[in-house]
Amino acid sequence: MTTHSRLATVTAASATRYGLVLDNGFVDLSARHGSVWPTLRAAIEAGALQTLSEKGAALAPDYSLDEITYEIPVPNAEKIICVGVNYPDRNEEYKDGQAAPPNPSLFPRFARSFVGHGVALNRPPESAQLDYEGEIVLVVGKGGRRIPEAQALDHIAALTLCNEGTIRDWVRHAKFNVTQGKNFDGTGSIGPWLVPYVNEAQIADIGFETRVNGEVRQSDRTSRMIFPFRKLIAYISTFTTLVPGDVLITGTPTGAGARFDPPIWLQPGDVVDVEAEGVGTLRNTVADEALK
Amino acid sequence: MTTHSRLATVTAASATRYGLVLDNGFVDLSARHGSVWPTLRAAIEAGALQTLSEKGAALAPDYSLDEITYEIPVPNAEKIICVGVNYPDRNEEYKDGQAAPPNPSLFPRFARSFVGHGVALNRPPESAQLDYEGEIVLVVGKGGRRIPEAQALDHIAALTLCNEGTIRDWVRHAKFNVTQGKNFDGTGSIGPWLVPYVNEAQIADIGFETRVNGEVRQSDRTSRMIFPFRKLIAYISTFTTLVPGDVLITGTPTGAGARFDPPIWLQPGDVVDVEAEGVGTLRNTVADEALK
Repeated sequence: MTTHSRLATVTAASATRYGLVLDNGFVDLSARHGSVWPTLRAAIEAGALQTLSEKGAALAPDYSLDEITYEIPVPNAEKIICVGVNYPDRNEEYKDGQAAPPNPSLFPRFARSFVGHGVALNRPPESAQLDYEGEIVLVVGKGGRRIPEAQALDHIAALTLCNEGTIRDWVRHAKFNVTQGKNFDGTGSIGPWLVPYVNEAQIADIGFETRVNGEVRQSDRTSRMIFPFRKLIAYISTFTTLVPGDVLITGTPTGAGARFDPPIWLQPGDVVDVEAEGVGTLRNTVADEALK
Repeated sequence: MTTHSRLATVTAASATRYGLVLDNGFVDLSARHGSVWPTLRAAIEAGALQTLSEKGAALAPDYSLDEITYEIPVPNAEKIICVGVNYPDRNEEYKDGQAAPPNPSLFPRFARSFVGHGVALNRPPESAQLDYEGEIVLVVGKGGRRIPEAQALDHIAALTLCNEGTIRDWVRHAKFNVTQGKNFDGTGSIGPWLVPYVNEAQIADIGFETRVNGEVRQSDRTSRMIFPFRKLIAYISTFTTLVPGDVLITGTPTGAGARFDPPIWLQPGDVVDVEAEGVGTLRNTVADEALK
Protein backbone atom coordinates (compact mmCIF):
# COMPACT_ATOMS: atom_id res chain seq x y z
CA MET A 1 0.00 0.00 0.00
CA THR A 2 1.53 3.30 -1.05
CA THR A 3 0.40 6.66 0.24
CA HIS A 4 1.68 8.80 -2.63
CA SER A 5 0.30 8.76 -6.14
CA ARG A 6 2.44 7.41 -8.96
CA LEU A 7 2.08 8.81 -12.49
CA ALA A 8 3.88 7.00 -15.28
CA THR A 9 4.42 7.08 -19.01
CA VAL A 10 4.17 3.58 -20.45
CA THR A 11 3.67 1.58 -23.59
CA ALA A 12 0.49 -0.50 -23.46
CA ALA A 13 -1.45 -2.04 -26.32
CA SER A 14 1.24 -0.75 -28.71
CA ALA A 15 0.79 2.93 -27.83
CA THR A 16 2.46 5.42 -25.51
CA ARG A 17 0.08 6.30 -22.67
CA TYR A 18 0.26 8.03 -19.34
CA GLY A 19 -1.68 7.20 -16.24
CA LEU A 20 -1.76 6.16 -12.64
CA VAL A 21 0.05 3.09 -11.34
CA LEU A 22 -2.01 1.30 -8.70
CA ASP A 23 -0.98 -1.82 -6.81
CA ASN A 24 -3.32 -3.87 -9.00
CA GLY A 25 -2.88 -2.23 -12.40
CA PHE A 26 -2.55 0.85 -14.59
CA VAL A 27 -5.30 3.46 -15.03
CA ASP A 28 -5.01 4.96 -18.51
CA LEU A 29 -5.45 8.69 -17.96
CA SER A 30 -4.25 9.67 -21.43
CA ALA A 31 -7.29 7.88 -22.88
CA ARG A 32 -9.48 10.17 -20.78
CA HIS A 33 -7.53 13.44 -20.70
CA GLY A 34 -5.18 13.19 -23.67
CA SER A 35 -7.08 15.74 -25.72
CA VAL A 36 -6.43 18.38 -23.03
CA TRP A 37 -3.02 17.17 -21.85
CA PRO A 38 -1.44 15.02 -24.58
CA THR A 39 1.55 14.08 -22.41
CA LEU A 40 2.61 14.14 -18.77
CA ARG A 41 4.75 17.14 -19.67
CA ALA A 42 1.63 19.00 -20.78
CA ALA A 43 -0.12 18.00 -17.54
CA ILE A 44 2.88 19.29 -15.59
CA GLU A 45 2.74 22.56 -17.49
CA ALA A 46 -0.94 22.88 -16.59
CA GLY A 47 -0.22 22.11 -12.93
CA ALA A 48 -2.54 19.12 -13.26
CA LEU A 49 -0.60 16.25 -11.65
CA GLN A 50 -2.62 16.38 -8.44
CA THR A 51 -5.91 16.57 -10.33
CA LEU A 52 -4.90 13.62 -12.50
CA SER A 53 -3.93 11.62 -9.43
CA GLU A 54 -7.30 12.19 -7.81
CA LYS A 55 -9.25 11.36 -10.95
CA GLY A 56 -7.25 8.20 -11.48
CA ALA A 57 -7.60 6.99 -7.91
CA ALA A 58 -11.36 6.71 -8.35
CA LEU A 59 -11.06 4.42 -11.36
CA ALA A 60 -10.46 0.74 -11.92
CA PRO A 61 -7.28 -0.28 -13.79
CA ASP A 62 -7.41 -0.53 -17.59
CA TYR A 63 -4.30 -2.69 -17.86
CA SER A 64 -2.64 -5.18 -15.57
CA LEU A 65 0.93 -4.35 -14.54
CA ASP A 66 2.06 -7.20 -16.78
CA GLU A 67 0.64 -5.39 -19.80
CA ILE A 68 2.63 -2.18 -19.46
CA THR A 69 6.24 -1.35 -20.31
CA TYR A 70 7.60 1.71 -18.56
CA GLU A 71 9.07 4.55 -20.55
CA ILE A 72 10.96 7.39 -18.90
CA PRO A 73 8.35 9.55 -17.16
CA VAL A 74 8.83 12.71 -19.26
CA PRO A 75 10.04 11.42 -22.63
CA ASN A 76 9.80 14.85 -24.27
CA ALA A 77 11.55 17.02 -21.67
CA GLU A 78 13.20 20.08 -23.13
CA LYS A 79 16.28 19.59 -20.97
CA ILE A 80 17.82 16.87 -18.84
CA ILE A 81 20.57 18.27 -16.61
CA CYS A 82 22.72 16.14 -14.31
CA VAL A 83 24.69 17.28 -11.29
CA GLY A 84 28.13 15.82 -10.60
CA VAL A 85 29.92 15.53 -7.25
CA ASN A 86 27.08 16.45 -4.89
CA TYR A 87 27.46 14.10 -1.89
CA PRO A 88 30.15 13.95 0.81
CA ASP A 89 33.33 12.04 0.00
CA ARG A 90 32.62 12.22 -3.71
CA ASN A 91 35.09 15.06 -4.26
CA GLU A 92 37.77 13.09 -2.42
CA GLU A 93 37.16 10.13 -4.73
CA TYR A 94 38.76 12.09 -7.57
CA LYS A 95 42.11 12.13 -5.71
CA ASP A 96 43.32 15.17 -7.61
CA GLY A 97 44.12 17.22 -4.53
CA GLN A 98 41.67 19.92 -5.52
CA ALA A 99 39.37 21.53 -2.97
CA ALA A 100 35.65 21.00 -3.26
CA PRO A 101 34.34 23.21 -6.05
CA PRO A 102 32.36 26.38 -5.33
CA ASN A 103 29.60 25.50 -7.80
CA PRO A 104 27.96 22.30 -8.95
CA SER A 105 29.38 20.50 -11.94
CA LEU A 106 26.64 20.07 -14.55
CA PHE A 107 26.24 18.06 -17.71
CA PRO A 108 23.28 17.39 -20.02
CA ARG A 109 22.12 13.95 -21.06
CA PHE A 110 19.93 13.17 -24.04
CA ALA A 111 16.62 11.39 -23.41
CA ARG A 112 17.72 8.48 -25.58
CA SER A 113 20.51 7.69 -23.12
CA PHE A 114 17.82 6.46 -20.72
CA VAL A 115 15.35 3.57 -20.61
CA GLY A 116 12.36 3.16 -18.33
CA HIS A 117 11.91 1.01 -15.24
CA GLY A 118 12.15 -2.71 -15.92
CA VAL A 119 13.91 -2.33 -19.26
CA ALA A 120 17.45 -3.72 -19.54
CA LEU A 121 20.33 -1.26 -19.48
CA ASN A 122 22.54 -1.55 -22.56
CA ARG A 123 26.14 -2.61 -22.16
CA PRO A 124 27.59 -1.42 -25.49
CA PRO A 125 30.26 -3.43 -27.30
CA GLU A 126 32.69 -0.48 -27.09
CA SER A 127 33.30 -0.85 -23.36
CA ALA A 128 33.11 -3.24 -20.42
CA GLN A 129 32.89 -0.31 -18.00
CA LEU A 130 29.15 0.19 -17.55
CA ASP A 131 28.65 1.65 -14.06
CA TYR A 132 25.62 2.62 -11.94
CA GLU A 133 24.88 5.90 -10.14
CA GLY A 134 21.68 6.11 -8.10
CA GLU A 135 20.17 9.61 -7.92
CA ILE A 136 17.10 11.57 -6.85
CA VAL A 137 15.39 13.46 -9.71
CA LEU A 138 13.40 16.69 -9.60
CA VAL A 139 10.96 17.46 -12.40
CA VAL A 140 10.32 21.16 -12.92
CA GLY A 141 6.76 22.45 -12.72
CA LYS A 142 6.53 26.20 -12.97
CA GLY A 143 9.28 27.52 -15.21
CA GLY A 144 11.52 30.47 -14.53
CA ARG A 145 14.84 32.23 -14.87
CA ARG A 146 17.04 33.49 -12.03
CA ILE A 147 14.78 31.85 -9.48
CA PRO A 148 15.72 32.94 -5.94
CA GLU A 149 16.61 30.14 -3.53
CA ALA A 150 13.76 31.20 -1.25
CA GLN A 151 11.21 30.42 -3.98
CA ALA A 152 13.05 27.55 -5.64
CA LEU A 153 11.02 24.68 -4.23
CA ASP A 154 7.80 26.19 -5.62
CA HIS A 155 9.16 25.24 -9.05
CA ILE A 156 9.18 21.49 -8.38
CA ALA A 157 6.33 19.44 -9.86
CA ALA A 158 7.41 15.92 -8.98
CA LEU A 159 10.12 13.50 -7.91
CA THR A 160 11.45 10.41 -9.56
CA LEU A 161 14.64 8.30 -9.58
CA CYS A 162 17.58 7.83 -11.90
CA ASN A 163 20.22 5.23 -12.43
CA GLU A 164 22.62 7.60 -14.14
CA GLY A 165 24.42 4.75 -15.86
CA THR A 166 27.83 5.70 -17.18
CA ILE A 167 30.42 4.25 -19.56
CA ARG A 168 33.33 5.06 -17.30
CA ASP A 169 36.27 4.95 -19.73
CA TRP A 170 34.42 7.16 -22.23
CA VAL A 171 33.88 9.87 -19.58
CA ARG A 172 37.55 10.81 -19.93
CA HIS A 173 37.86 10.16 -23.64
CA ALA A 174 38.71 13.75 -24.43
CA LYS A 175 40.25 16.80 -22.88
CA PHE A 176 37.12 18.21 -21.24
CA ASN A 177 33.57 17.13 -20.54
CA VAL A 178 31.94 13.83 -19.76
CA THR A 179 29.45 13.98 -22.64
CA GLN A 180 30.20 10.77 -24.47
CA GLY A 181 30.51 8.52 -21.39
CA LYS A 182 27.18 9.83 -20.13
CA ASN A 183 25.25 9.55 -23.38
CA PHE A 184 25.48 6.04 -24.77
CA ASP A 185 21.96 5.10 -25.84
CA GLY A 186 20.00 3.23 -23.20
CA THR A 187 22.76 3.06 -20.57
CA GLY A 188 20.80 4.78 -17.78
CA SER A 189 17.24 4.73 -16.52
CA ILE A 190 14.67 7.14 -15.09
CA GLY A 191 11.49 6.22 -13.24
CA PRO A 192 9.51 4.27 -12.47
CA TRP A 193 7.01 7.13 -12.11
CA LEU A 194 6.46 10.69 -10.99
CA VAL A 195 5.47 11.28 -7.39
CA PRO A 196 3.86 14.73 -7.19
CA TYR A 197 5.75 17.21 -5.03
CA VAL A 198 3.85 18.35 -1.95
CA ASN A 199 6.18 20.21 0.38
CA GLU A 200 9.74 20.56 1.60
CA ALA A 201 9.37 17.88 4.27
CA GLN A 202 8.92 15.40 1.45
CA ILE A 203 12.42 16.03 0.04
CA ALA A 204 14.48 17.42 2.92
CA ASP A 205 15.89 14.11 4.14
CA ILE A 206 15.11 11.34 1.68
CA GLY A 207 17.12 8.20 2.37
CA PHE A 208 18.05 6.33 -0.78
CA GLU A 209 20.30 3.49 -1.83
CA THR A 210 21.59 1.61 -4.83
CA ARG A 211 21.81 -2.17 -4.78
CA VAL A 212 23.47 -4.50 -7.26
CA ASN A 213 22.09 -8.03 -7.05
CA GLY A 214 20.74 -7.10 -3.64
CA GLU A 215 24.06 -5.84 -2.25
CA VAL A 216 23.98 -2.22 -1.05
CA ARG A 217 26.60 -0.19 -2.92
CA GLN A 218 25.43 3.39 -2.37
CA SER A 219 23.42 4.77 0.55
CA ASP A 220 22.94 8.37 1.56
CA ARG A 221 20.34 11.04 2.39
CA THR A 222 19.35 14.21 0.57
CA SER A 223 20.01 16.23 3.74
CA ARG A 224 23.71 15.65 3.09
CA MET A 225 23.83 17.12 -0.41
CA ILE A 226 26.69 19.58 -0.94
CA PHE A 227 24.46 21.71 -3.18
CA PRO A 228 20.90 21.34 -1.90
CA PHE A 229 17.81 21.37 -4.11
CA ARG A 230 17.18 25.09 -3.57
CA LYS A 231 20.71 25.95 -4.61
CA LEU A 232 20.59 23.73 -7.70
CA ILE A 233 17.38 25.30 -9.00
CA ALA A 234 18.62 28.83 -8.31
CA TYR A 235 22.04 28.19 -9.85
CA ILE A 236 20.87 26.37 -12.97
CA SER A 237 18.15 28.94 -13.66
CA THR A 238 20.80 31.66 -13.54
CA PHE A 239 21.98 30.67 -17.00
CA THR A 240 19.07 28.78 -18.58
CA THR A 241 15.33 29.28 -18.38
CA LEU A 242 13.77 26.27 -16.71
CA VAL A 243 10.53 25.12 -18.31
CA PRO A 244 7.83 22.66 -17.20
CA GLY A 245 9.00 19.08 -17.52
CA ASP A 246 12.72 19.83 -17.29
CA VAL A 247 14.52 17.00 -15.51
CA LEU A 248 17.18 17.72 -12.88
CA ILE A 249 19.24 14.70 -11.82
CA THR A 250 20.75 15.78 -8.56
CA GLY A 251 23.93 13.78 -8.00
CA THR A 252 25.05 10.39 -6.73
CA PRO A 253 26.52 9.29 -3.37
CA THR A 254 29.88 7.62 -3.01
CA GLY A 255 30.13 3.97 -3.93
CA ALA A 256 29.85 3.61 -7.70
CA GLY A 257 31.60 0.57 -9.14
CA ALA A 258 34.51 2.71 -10.36
CA ARG A 259 35.44 3.46 -6.75
CA PHE A 260 36.23 -0.12 -5.81
CA ASP A 261 39.78 -1.44 -6.11
CA PRO A 262 39.70 -3.14 -8.51
CA PRO A 263 36.60 -1.53 -10.03
CA ILE A 264 33.46 -3.65 -10.26
CA TRP A 265 31.62 -3.07 -13.54
CA LEU A 266 28.07 -4.12 -14.27
CA GLN A 267 27.71 -7.45 -16.06
CA PRO A 268 24.91 -8.87 -18.20
CA GLY A 269 22.30 -10.38 -15.90
CA ASP A 270 23.00 -8.01 -13.00
CA VAL A 271 19.97 -6.41 -11.35
CA VAL A 272 20.34 -2.81 -10.19
CA ASP A 273 17.83 -1.20 -7.81
CA VAL A 274 17.68 2.46 -6.90
CA GLU A 275 15.27 2.82 -3.99
CA ALA A 276 14.21 5.99 -2.20
CA GLU A 277 11.85 6.60 0.68
CA GLY A 278 8.57 8.00 -0.53
CA VAL A 279 9.38 7.50 -4.20
CA GLY A 280 9.77 3.80 -4.92
CA THR A 281 12.25 1.45 -6.52
CA LEU A 282 13.71 1.81 -9.99
CA ARG A 283 14.86 -1.62 -11.13
CA ASN A 284 16.78 -2.54 -14.27
CA THR A 285 18.67 -5.55 -15.42
CA VAL A 286 21.78 -5.34 -17.59
CA ALA A 287 22.16 -6.88 -21.04
CA ASP A 288 24.69 -6.75 -23.81
CA GLU A 289 23.36 -4.32 -26.40
CA ALA A 290 21.55 -6.04 -29.23
CA LEU A 291 23.28 -4.76 -32.37
CA LYS A 292 21.26 -4.25 -35.52
CA MET B 1 24.00 36.71 -56.57
CA THR B 2 24.32 33.43 -54.73
CA THR B 3 24.62 30.08 -56.38
CA HIS B 4 23.45 27.93 -53.47
CA SER B 5 19.92 27.88 -52.09
CA ARG B 6 19.27 29.25 -48.61
CA LEU B 7 16.48 27.80 -46.48
CA ALA B 8 15.61 29.63 -43.28
CA THR B 9 13.25 29.51 -40.34
CA VAL B 10 11.91 32.98 -39.59
CA THR B 11 9.21 34.92 -37.84
CA ALA B 12 7.07 36.89 -40.30
CA ALA B 13 3.59 38.33 -39.78
CA SER B 14 3.72 37.08 -36.16
CA ALA B 15 4.18 33.41 -37.03
CA THR B 16 7.10 31.00 -37.36
CA ARG B 17 7.58 30.10 -41.02
CA TYR B 18 10.20 28.43 -43.15
CA GLY B 19 11.14 29.23 -46.67
CA LEU B 20 13.69 30.32 -49.22
CA VAL B 21 15.76 33.46 -48.83
CA LEU B 22 16.23 35.22 -52.16
CA ASP B 23 18.21 38.39 -52.75
CA ASN B 24 14.94 40.33 -52.98
CA GLY B 25 12.81 38.66 -50.33
CA PHE B 26 11.55 35.57 -48.55
CA VAL B 27 9.45 32.87 -50.23
CA ASP B 28 7.13 31.33 -47.60
CA LEU B 29 7.36 27.59 -48.24
CA SER B 30 5.66 26.60 -44.99
CA ALA B 31 2.47 28.27 -46.25
CA ARG B 32 2.59 25.95 -49.27
CA HIS B 33 4.09 22.74 -47.83
CA GLY B 34 3.50 23.03 -44.09
CA SER B 35 0.80 20.37 -44.06
CA VAL B 36 3.30 17.82 -45.38
CA TRP B 37 6.44 19.16 -43.69
CA PRO B 38 5.45 21.32 -40.72
CA THR B 39 9.05 22.37 -40.01
CA LEU B 40 12.43 22.40 -41.72
CA ARG B 41 13.33 19.45 -39.49
CA ALA B 42 10.44 17.49 -40.99
CA ALA B 43 11.59 18.48 -44.49
CA ILE B 44 15.12 17.31 -43.62
CA GLU B 45 13.73 14.00 -42.38
CA ALA B 46 11.90 13.57 -45.68
CA GLY B 47 15.04 14.43 -47.66
CA ALA B 48 13.12 17.33 -49.18
CA LEU B 49 15.53 20.28 -48.90
CA GLN B 50 16.50 20.14 -52.56
CA THR B 51 12.87 19.82 -53.68
CA LEU B 52 11.89 22.77 -51.51
CA SER B 53 14.73 24.83 -52.91
CA GLU B 54 13.65 24.17 -56.47
CA LYS B 55 9.99 24.90 -55.77
CA GLY B 56 10.87 28.13 -54.00
CA ALA B 57 13.20 29.36 -56.70
CA ALA B 58 10.31 29.51 -59.17
CA LEU B 59 8.24 31.79 -56.93
CA ALA B 60 8.12 35.47 -56.14
CA PRO B 61 8.88 36.55 -52.55
CA ASP B 62 6.01 36.75 -50.08
CA TYR B 63 7.85 39.01 -47.66
CA SER B 64 10.58 41.57 -48.03
CA LEU B 65 13.77 40.86 -46.11
CA ASP B 66 12.81 43.73 -43.78
CA GLU B 67 9.69 41.84 -42.74
CA ILE B 68 11.41 38.70 -41.47
CA THR B 69 13.26 37.99 -38.23
CA TYR B 70 15.56 35.00 -38.39
CA GLU B 71 15.22 32.17 -35.91
CA ILE B 72 17.80 29.42 -35.61
CA PRO B 73 17.37 27.19 -38.68
CA VAL B 74 16.26 24.02 -36.86
CA PRO B 75 14.57 25.29 -33.68
CA ASN B 76 13.33 21.83 -32.70
CA ALA B 77 16.49 19.77 -33.16
CA GLU B 78 16.65 16.74 -30.91
CA LYS B 79 20.32 17.36 -30.16
CA ILE B 80 22.83 20.16 -30.52
CA ILE B 81 26.38 18.88 -30.00
CA CYS B 82 29.45 21.12 -30.02
CA VAL B 83 33.04 20.09 -30.62
CA GLY B 84 35.84 21.69 -28.60
CA VAL B 85 39.50 22.08 -29.56
CA ASN B 86 39.34 21.11 -33.24
CA TYR B 87 41.70 23.51 -35.04
CA PRO B 88 45.50 23.77 -34.92
CA ASP B 89 47.01 25.79 -32.08
CA ARG B 90 43.81 25.54 -30.05
CA ASN B 91 45.16 22.78 -27.81
CA GLU B 92 48.28 24.87 -27.14
CA GLU B 93 46.07 27.77 -26.07
CA TYR B 94 45.17 25.85 -22.95
CA LYS B 95 48.82 25.96 -21.77
CA ASP B 96 48.34 22.94 -19.54
CA GLY B 97 51.20 20.94 -21.00
CA GLN B 98 48.90 18.14 -22.09
CA ALA B 99 49.26 16.49 -25.46
CA ALA B 100 46.49 16.88 -28.00
CA PRO B 101 43.65 14.57 -27.05
CA PRO B 102 42.94 11.35 -28.94
CA ASN B 103 39.22 12.10 -29.29
CA PRO B 104 37.15 15.22 -29.75
CA SER B 105 35.87 17.02 -26.69
CA LEU B 106 32.08 17.32 -26.93
CA PHE B 107 29.41 19.28 -25.11
CA PRO B 108 25.71 19.80 -25.69
CA ARG B 109 24.03 23.19 -25.89
CA PHE B 110 20.35 23.86 -25.47
CA ALA B 111 18.48 25.54 -28.34
CA ARG B 112 17.55 28.45 -26.11
CA SER B 113 21.23 29.37 -25.75
CA PHE B 114 21.12 30.55 -29.38
CA VAL B 115 19.43 33.35 -31.29
CA GLY B 116 19.02 33.71 -35.04
CA HIS B 117 20.92 35.88 -37.51
CA GLY B 118 20.45 39.58 -36.93
CA VAL B 119 19.22 39.22 -33.36
CA ALA B 120 21.39 40.73 -30.60
CA LEU B 121 23.49 38.36 -28.50
CA ASN B 122 22.71 38.68 -24.77
CA ARG B 123 25.42 39.86 -22.44
CA PRO B 124 24.02 38.67 -19.09
CA PRO B 125 24.43 40.74 -15.92
CA GLU B 126 26.34 37.87 -14.26
CA SER B 127 29.48 38.32 -16.36
CA ALA B 128 31.40 40.75 -18.54
CA GLN B 129 33.14 37.85 -20.30
CA LEU B 130 30.94 37.24 -23.34
CA ASP B 131 33.19 35.80 -26.06
CA TYR B 132 32.72 34.76 -29.70
CA GLU B 133 33.62 31.49 -31.42
CA GLY B 134 32.97 31.19 -35.15
CA GLU B 135 32.18 27.65 -36.33
CA ILE B 136 30.93 25.60 -39.27
CA VAL B 137 27.74 23.63 -38.55
CA LEU B 138 26.57 20.33 -40.03
CA VAL B 139 22.89 19.45 -39.91
CA VAL B 140 22.20 15.71 -39.96
CA GLY B 141 19.95 14.34 -42.70
CA LYS B 142 19.77 10.56 -42.64
CA GLY B 143 20.03 9.31 -39.07
CA GLY B 144 22.15 6.43 -37.87
CA ARG B 145 24.21 4.78 -35.18
CA ARG B 146 27.83 3.65 -35.47
CA ILE B 147 28.12 5.24 -38.89
CA PRO B 148 31.38 4.22 -40.61
CA GLU B 149 33.65 7.09 -41.63
CA ALA B 150 33.41 5.96 -45.25
CA GLN B 151 29.66 6.62 -45.28
CA ALA B 152 29.58 9.52 -42.85
CA LEU B 153 29.15 12.34 -45.34
CA ASP B 154 26.00 10.71 -46.72
CA HIS B 155 24.38 11.65 -43.41
CA ILE B 156 24.74 15.41 -43.89
CA ALA B 157 21.66 17.34 -44.98
CA ALA B 158 22.92 20.90 -44.85
CA LEU B 159 25.47 23.42 -43.64
CA THR B 160 25.08 26.54 -41.59
CA LEU B 161 27.16 28.75 -39.27
CA CYS B 162 27.45 29.30 -35.55
CA ASN B 163 28.78 31.98 -33.29
CA GLU B 164 29.24 29.66 -30.34
CA GLY B 165 29.12 32.56 -27.87
CA THR B 166 30.50 31.70 -24.45
CA ILE B 167 30.47 33.19 -20.97
CA ARG B 168 34.14 32.51 -20.38
CA ASP B 169 34.35 32.67 -16.56
CA TRP B 170 31.33 30.36 -16.17
CA VAL B 171 32.99 27.68 -18.34
CA ARG B 172 35.28 26.86 -15.41
CA HIS B 173 32.75 27.46 -12.66
CA ALA B 174 32.86 23.90 -11.44
CA LYS B 175 35.15 20.91 -11.32
CA PHE B 176 34.27 19.43 -14.70
CA ASN B 177 32.33 20.39 -17.80
CA VAL B 178 31.69 23.64 -19.59
CA THR B 179 27.88 23.37 -19.43
CA GLN B 180 26.94 26.60 -17.69
CA GLY B 181 29.33 28.89 -19.58
CA LYS B 182 28.04 27.50 -22.86
CA ASN B 183 24.33 27.66 -22.10
CA PHE B 184 23.35 31.15 -21.02
CA ASP B 185 20.14 31.95 -22.87
CA GLY B 186 20.68 33.81 -26.12
CA THR B 187 24.47 34.10 -25.92
CA GLY B 188 25.24 32.36 -29.21
CA SER B 189 23.74 32.30 -32.69
CA ILE B 190 23.11 29.84 -35.51
CA GLY B 191 22.28 30.67 -39.09
CA PRO B 192 21.41 32.60 -41.11
CA TRP B 193 20.09 29.64 -43.12
CA LEU B 194 20.64 26.08 -44.25
CA VAL B 195 22.62 25.50 -47.43
CA PRO B 196 21.78 22.00 -48.69
CA TYR B 197 24.73 19.62 -48.74
CA VAL B 198 25.73 18.48 -52.20
CA ASN B 199 29.08 16.73 -52.08
CA GLU B 200 32.41 16.50 -50.29
CA ALA B 201 34.01 19.20 -52.42
CA GLN B 202 31.56 21.66 -50.86
CA ILE B 203 32.94 21.12 -47.34
CA ALA B 204 36.50 19.82 -47.77
CA ASP B 205 38.24 23.18 -47.62
CA ILE B 206 35.81 25.90 -46.56
CA GLY B 207 37.59 29.10 -45.60
CA PHE B 208 35.86 30.98 -42.79
CA GLU B 209 36.53 33.87 -40.49
CA THR B 210 35.13 35.73 -37.51
CA ARG B 211 35.21 39.52 -37.44
CA VAL B 212 34.42 41.88 -34.57
CA ASN B 213 33.52 45.37 -35.79
CA GLY B 214 35.14 44.45 -39.08
CA GLU B 215 38.47 43.31 -37.58
CA VAL B 216 39.41 39.71 -38.40
CA ARG B 217 39.91 37.74 -35.18
CA GLN B 218 39.63 34.13 -36.37
CA SER B 219 40.43 32.72 -39.79
CA ASP B 220 40.95 29.12 -40.79
CA ARG B 221 39.90 26.39 -43.21
CA THR B 222 37.99 23.15 -42.65
CA SER B 223 40.81 21.20 -44.30
CA ARG B 224 42.85 21.90 -41.15
CA MET B 225 40.42 20.38 -38.67
CA ILE B 226 42.04 18.00 -36.17
CA PHE B 227 38.95 15.76 -36.24
CA PRO B 228 37.48 16.05 -39.74
CA PHE B 229 33.76 15.90 -40.49
CA ARG B 230 33.85 12.17 -41.26
CA LYS B 231 35.52 11.39 -37.97
CA LEU B 232 33.09 13.56 -35.97
CA ILE B 233 30.01 11.86 -37.41
CA ALA B 234 31.47 8.39 -36.92
CA TYR B 235 32.66 9.11 -33.38
CA ILE B 236 29.51 10.86 -32.12
CA SER B 237 27.26 8.21 -33.61
CA THR B 238 29.23 5.56 -31.73
CA PHE B 239 27.47 6.53 -28.52
CA THR B 240 24.27 8.31 -29.59
CA THR B 241 21.88 7.69 -32.47
CA LEU B 242 21.94 10.66 -34.80
CA VAL B 243 18.52 11.68 -36.09
CA PRO B 244 17.43 14.06 -38.85
CA GLY B 245 17.87 17.68 -37.83
CA ASP B 246 20.59 17.07 -35.25
CA VAL B 247 23.02 19.98 -35.19
CA LEU B 248 26.79 19.38 -35.01
CA ILE B 249 28.86 22.49 -34.29
CA THR B 250 32.31 21.52 -35.40
CA GLY B 251 34.82 23.62 -33.47
CA THR B 252 36.39 27.07 -33.58
CA PRO B 253 39.81 28.25 -34.79
CA THR B 254 42.31 30.04 -32.60
CA GLY B 255 41.69 33.71 -31.85
CA ALA B 256 38.73 33.99 -29.47
CA GLY B 257 38.77 37.06 -27.25
CA ALA B 258 39.92 35.01 -24.26
CA ARG B 259 43.23 34.33 -26.03
CA PHE B 260 44.36 37.96 -26.17
CA ASP B 261 46.50 39.42 -23.38
CA PRO B 262 44.62 41.05 -21.83
CA PRO B 263 41.44 39.32 -23.03
CA ILE B 264 39.06 41.31 -25.21
CA TRP B 265 35.44 40.63 -24.30
CA LEU B 266 32.45 41.55 -26.43
CA GLN B 267 30.78 44.84 -25.52
CA PRO B 268 27.27 46.13 -26.14
CA GLY B 269 27.12 47.59 -29.63
CA ASP B 270 29.80 45.29 -31.07
CA VAL B 271 29.01 43.62 -34.38
CA VAL B 272 30.22 40.03 -34.84
CA ASP B 273 30.30 38.39 -38.27
CA VAL B 274 30.99 34.73 -38.94
CA GLU B 275 31.50 34.33 -42.68
CA ALA B 276 32.18 31.16 -44.63
CA GLU B 277 32.72 30.51 -48.33
CA GLY B 278 29.63 28.99 -49.89
CA VAL B 279 27.48 29.46 -46.79
CA GLY B 280 27.11 33.16 -46.08
CA THR B 281 27.54 35.57 -43.19
CA LEU B 282 26.01 35.20 -39.77
CA ARG B 283 25.85 38.68 -38.20
CA ASN B 284 24.83 39.59 -34.67
CA THR B 285 25.17 42.66 -32.56
CA VAL B 286 25.72 42.51 -28.80
CA ALA B 287 23.41 44.02 -26.19
CA ASP B 288 23.09 43.93 -22.44
CA GLU B 289 20.38 41.42 -21.61
CA ALA B 290 17.00 43.05 -21.03
CA LEU B 291 15.94 41.78 -17.61
CA LYS B 292 12.29 41.16 -16.93
